[in-house]
Amino acid sequence: MARVKKKERQELLMQTVKEKPFLTDEELAKALEVSVQTIRLDRLELGIPELRGRIRRMAETAQNKVKSIASGEVVGELIDLELGRSGISLLRVTEDMVFARSQIAKGYYMFSQANSLALALIDSPLAVTGVANVKYKVPVHVGEKLIAKAEIVRVRGNKYFVWVKTRNDTQEVFRAKFILVSLGES
Amino acid sequence: MARVKKKERQELLMQTVKEKPFLTDEELAKALEVSVQTIRLDRLELGIPELRGRIRRMAETAQNKVKSIASGEVVGELIDLELGRSGISLLRVTEDMVFARSQIAKGYYMFSQANSLALALIDSPLAVTGVANVKYKVPVHVGEKLIAKAEIVRVRGNKYFVWVKTRNDTQEVFRAKFILVSLGES
Repeated sequence: MARVKKKERQELLMQTVKEKPFLTDEELAKALEVSVQTIRLDRLELGIPELRGRIRRMAETAQNKVKSIASGEVVGELIDLELGRSGISLLRVTEDMVFARSQIAKGYYMFSQANSLALALIDSPLAVTGVANVKYKVPVHVGEKLIAKAEIVRVRGNKYFVWVKTRNDTQEVFRAKFILVSLGES
Repeated sequence: MARVKKKERQELLMQTVKEKPFLTDEELAKALEVSVQTIRLDRLELGIPELRGRIRRMAETAQNKVKSIASGEVVGELIDLELGRSGISLLRVTEDMVFARSQIAKGYYMFSQANSLALALIDSPLAVTGVANVKYKVPVHVGEKLIAKAEIVRVRGNKYFVWVKTRNDTQEVFRAKFILVSLGES
């Protein structure tokens, strides 16, 4: 029976890592109700890199696809990119991103993350921002990992309507709607 | 007659500098249809500092008034501030602010300038951004001086509605509407 349980557990691990690639070993252990050591051994057997390695691997693949801006110009780490459709980026909130007085992250970091991710989705050699409507839902603090997910929801001529939703570990903290304009010939 | 003309010219100069404090001597000379040397001599006689000095003097006065964030956290140079009412900031677009490929300024610099200026207007020890609606009207390039003017147009409870309009030398390039929320007790 132990063998079956292990197989099931490893399948569940693979599934979980696929759906939530940004969980640490500790968080995976909690989700699967096993020890951290079990997660590490399972990862080793299955050839799943640790979190940092997973992010690096995803980032390399994603960054090679960006066309409309230079990939280094994406604020945060570009983790996933389906050009012309959707993308994901990760931004760690550090000391230098918060207001000294309130210790709350400056709003334009979330804006920059979302805006540059939205631009990265555009399958054109050149794109600029036309309009942005954004909403800050919860104050963000040092140490939080912000995952922004962007999606092109509509294309009209050279105008791209892109929605971005940004979450920390527990909830949505920010959302944005952009109208981007492609200036280059495709 | 020369005396009268000089007096009129100097009054016009004082008026012009008051209305448009960001004009260089060259631009003032053109506006008043006199030589650059005449402008310099008139400035000297009238005790009007040169452009850089004017900006520095305005900035010192303005920066001492900021309450809701640290004055150094305003993106660009805070030039004028009437706490609880309006403010002006100046941002010079430098090489590091543009996208490498397009040489167009990254949209979040205009956003940051406007957003931090809007926050600076709030007469409260702590304020955060709730909503932002922004429009990019013209691409901005290296070397441009961006003057952002912000105004609190409405206050409802602890919510502040702030409009910001940003111009380069010739036209409006960006505008933003913010809803900011004061979190501190006034």
